[in-house]
Amino acid sequence: MDMAGGMPTRRDMLHAIGVLGGASVLYQAMEAMGHAAESQFAGPPNLSGARPGASVVVLGAGLAGMLAAYELRKAGYTVEIIEYNTRPGGRNWSLYGGDSYTELGGATQKVGFAKGNYLNPGPWRIPYHHRTVLHYCKAFGVALEPFIQLNHAALIHNSKAFGGKAQSYRELAADWDGNVAELLSKAIDNKGLNGVVTAEDGDRLKEALRTWGMLDKDMRYVRGEHSAERRGWDRPPGGGINGAPIPSTPFDFSEVRKSGVWRAFAQHMGHERQTTMFQPVGGMGMIGQAFGKQVEGLVRYGAKVTRIDQSGGAVTVTYTDVASGTQRIAKADYCVCTIPLGILSQIELDASAGLRAAVAAVPYSNSVKVGLEMKTRFWEDESAIYGGISFTDKPISMISYPSGGMTSSGPAVILGAYTFGPASYKFAGMTPEQRVAEALEQGSVFHPGRYKEEFSNGTAVAWSRSPFTLGCCAQWNEDTRKEHYQTLVAVDDRIVLAGEHASYIGCWMEGALLSSLDAITRLHKRALEA
Amino acid sequence: MDMAGGMPTRRDMLHAIGVLGGASVLYQAMEAMGHAAESQFAGPPNLSGARPGASVVVLGAGLAGMLAAYELRKAGYTVEIIEYNTRPGGRNWSLYGGDSYTELGGATQKVGFAKGNYLNPGPWRIPYHHRTVLHYCKAFGVALEPFIQLNHAALIHNSKAFGGKAQSYRELAADWDGNVAELLSKAIDNKGLNGVVTAEDGDRLKEALRTWGMLDKDMRYVRGEHSAERRGWDRPPGGGINGAPIPSTPFDFSEVRKSGVWRAFAQHMGHERQTTMFQPVGGMGMIGQAFGKQVEGLVRYGAKVTRIDQSGGAVTVTYTDVASGTQRIAKADYCVCTIPLGILSQIELDASAGLRAAVAAVPYSNSVKVGLEMKTRFWEDESAIYGGISFTDKPISMISYPSGGMTSSGPAVILGAYTFGPASYKFAGMTPEQRVAEALEQGSVFHPGRYKEEFSNGTAVAWSRSPFTLGCCAQWNEDTRKEHYQTLVAVDDRIVLAGEHASYIGCWMEGALLSSLDAITRLHKRALEA
Repeated sequence: MDMAGGMPTRRDMLHAIGVLGGASVLYQAMEAMGHAAESQFAGPPNLSGARPGASVVVLGAGLAGMLAAYELRKAGYTVEIIEYNTRPGGRNWSLYGGDSYTELGGATQKVGFAKGNYLNPGPWRIPYHHRTVLHYCKAFGVALEPFIQLNHAALIHNSKAFGGKAQSYRELAADWDGNVAELLSKAIDNKGLNGVVTAEDGDRLKEALRTWGMLDKDMRYVRGEHSAERRGWDRPPGGGINGAPIPSTPFDFSEVRKSGVWRAFAQHMGHERQTTMFQPVGGMGMIGQAFGKQVEGLVRYGAKVTRIDQSGGAVTVTYTDVASGTQRIAKADYCVCTIPLGILSQIELDASAGLRAAVAAVPYSNSVKVGLEMKTRFWEDESAIYGGISFTDKPISMISYPSGGMTSSGPAVILGAYTFGPASYKFAGMTPEQRVAEALEQGSVFHPGRYKEEFSNGTAVAWSRSPFTLGCCAQWNEDTRKEHYQTLVAVDDRIVLAGEHASYIGCWMEGALLSSLDAITRLHKRALEA
Repeated sequence: MDMAGGMPTRRDMLHAIGVLGGASVLYQAMEAMGHAAESQFAGPPNLSGARPGASVVVLGAGLAGMLAAYELRKAGYTVEIIEYNTRPGGRNWSLYGGDSYTELGGATQKVGFAKGNYLNPGPWRIPYHHRTVLHYCKAFGVALEPFIQLNHAALIHNSKAFGGKAQSYRELAADWDGNVAELLSKAIDNKGLNGVVTAEDGDRLKEALRTWGMLDKDMRYVRGEHSAERRGWDRPPGGGINGAPIPSTPFDFSEVRKSGVWRAFAQHMGHERQTTMFQPVGGMGMIGQAFGKQVEGLVRYGAKVTRIDQSGGAVTVTYTDVASGTQRIAKADYCVCTIPLGILSQIELDASAGLRAAVAAVPYSNSVKVGLEMKTRFWEDESAIYGGISFTDKPISMISYPSGGMTSSGPAVILGAYTFGPASYKFAGMTPEQRVAEALEQGSVFHPGRYKEEFSNGTAVAWSRSPFTLGCCAQWNEDTRKEHYQTLVAVDDRIVLAGEHASYIGCWMEGALLSSLDAITRLHKRALEA
């Protein structure tokens, strides 16, 4: 708390409250002071005063594990991290040209991207309210840039609408709002909301609907300057003698509904995907690398944990040094285990039956991501699409245009597939080359004629074949939350679990970090009480 | 047309069509090939073959004038630019720390911003479909970065709603959509749309409304996980033992309507403000400077035009060298005049009565912009607001958070006022210091307690007091367009006008550039035919 500048500011006070009372007290104080509740993050934890010589072994050098190690070392613990991969970051990871990656099944891909280009197989965007991620990015010097989620010029393809021709989000969204506004206005006129909305409120609502929906003076959403001001023009406004614009024609509303644009709305407007989003400059993996620098010297890479024992007043972790094949042991007073549950359930774990049941109870989702490098940014120069996402009802589900390096020249990597559900297993069952070819084929619906012509090379990651996670992320449901969640996150004698699977922000880095902070805060308390 | 790579691509063909047939033919071809009509820009003009020794004097080194000079010189003309200011760019302009600016009336401001910080008094954002601006930014090496227009965490203040307390766009927008969806669904149930929507379509529409509006299973927009997934949480999802989230409570719908959030929607979704928008790294003035480099040596700065004569087979421009007070003359075969109409109407202009009437017929709008430098980016660190705009019904109309340097530390400049209409004249009537104080007072509604506390210094530009434009931009209406527009843009013997005022994209740089390209294309044709 820096009071050198005079009277304490509200920020100083909040910081002091956080330091003295911890996250939950700070949270209440912020609420009382009228702060929006953007996050449960209340600043870095204050974990000083570890007993001399106390030690912690952290399993996994993903974000949760590295944050635990970083903060516990600051608190005075002797810390060691055991990590299977030969790099920090875990699922926080970018694949660059020259990298190679071998998946389960043995297929190895050598990434062919041009210098600086990348695919983020895992996380790829950071919401503005993921305060923990943003805090540590700033603290660890990770440069961020905007991630473009919503782009009005991006496309929506639905095989059941518009004869399978992709249309712009701009036109579909304009037509959705416009028709909804016109219909609701008509319903008010038809007394369809009598008893729900008073006549006076109905009139005021209609005025708002007119502006919102770009209706004309007769409350109709029709071809004209109003609708064109949102959906665009057949001939856009220009300069000189042909400057006068010509409006475009709204689509048939039933086709608009069939396109599923309302689903895209729900995507873009969802709390986790609202503007402003961020990404690290140079790839999401920059975060893992920055965390890795902070714990340099603490990590034993290429080490596969085979057994976790906590008898005899200590935690003993048995692991195999992958390069040499030799078996080794790490011993500490406590353990923070961030190993994904699908892997952990296959490791001999000396813990309560409840914890072991919880570990076994939560399945992992699968997802496949494909990066397609294109020779040029033709979507920018030819279609005025800068970043953002084009959606389709095909198995690839979407393609995303790079938010980095916009308006520059040279080759660039499109996220060519981001599959969910059954489509993921179908893609995972293919060879990497087949996945790339399939993504290229399916994505051509957005840019027919250009997509294949501009294609240069591709890389595909199927998370179910990832040797270090065996899946994408933990899939809790209402029943498993009820039966297993509190057991999973509780300190189990000398061991505590952390990671996105130990949070309610599953699949997001923020969940991993918040889980880690909560876990080490409780472990530290346990250690001081021991 | 580069055919070295093999068969001509569609792009090659379009380029060839543009070169051979000009903009209008290219436009038709693009339409026929299924290109979205994003712009009337069809690539740089092809103006080769000027008669040896032919010369053009360009009045004004704003973007329109500099582009005209750049392209006409390429075509072979001898070009000279006469500019009143001592810098290139005109209204494209950034004020940096150390700059000083004297407005009409004599008030001089010395800008106090920290190094690198700036206010853009004029243009400040570039839509994705302003293809001419984007083309020349790329060609002239202007680095661009995203401009954040829509930000869900930004605020909306309306003195008539919520007791004058600003609320987040996120919550208001979620509640607007949700209530509209619920009402329309109810109206369908109440048969309020019988005869408009079939029963089957009504059912399908309801399913879409449920997803779009975040309705629950009973088609209600109520407190719960659905609405919270968009509007946010009282306790957001977290990690560990307190991970479970607590939903927030939707606002009363009549307050939401009164807030005018539907007006903000219309702003953000309008064609000219849709995602993705851009700004130059380091200030909008970077564009003017980059254009200035391209015409280096051609510009006579500090020169005030007093008379334009086109008798005797040439154009003779009389101007005063402002520094010395001496009168001088520039002579050329033709003239591209980009002087704003409010200034031009005060200059002796030897042109047809029709053109002179047109010049006199178009009034200029006024606007005041205020830059407020704050000691820290408290809106980012404390309120999770990164870029974007907070709206108010107070005279300042909005404040905008900087899109540049997001997540960095140190002082930053907020656009503290962007006035329209009568409010602009009220602000223009104040001293610059009073404008800054008033903007600070009014903007405090968004960040009470913090705004004044963090304020460091400010700068205010009132366009009605700008010596080089006497206003903001040309205000055409339906009648003046009909009576004067074609006369204004026509080549008048040896003179042609260009600028945003000679376009249908008024107040935008794109209008100035497209107008310029159209004007010089016709002037060149006239010169070749002469």
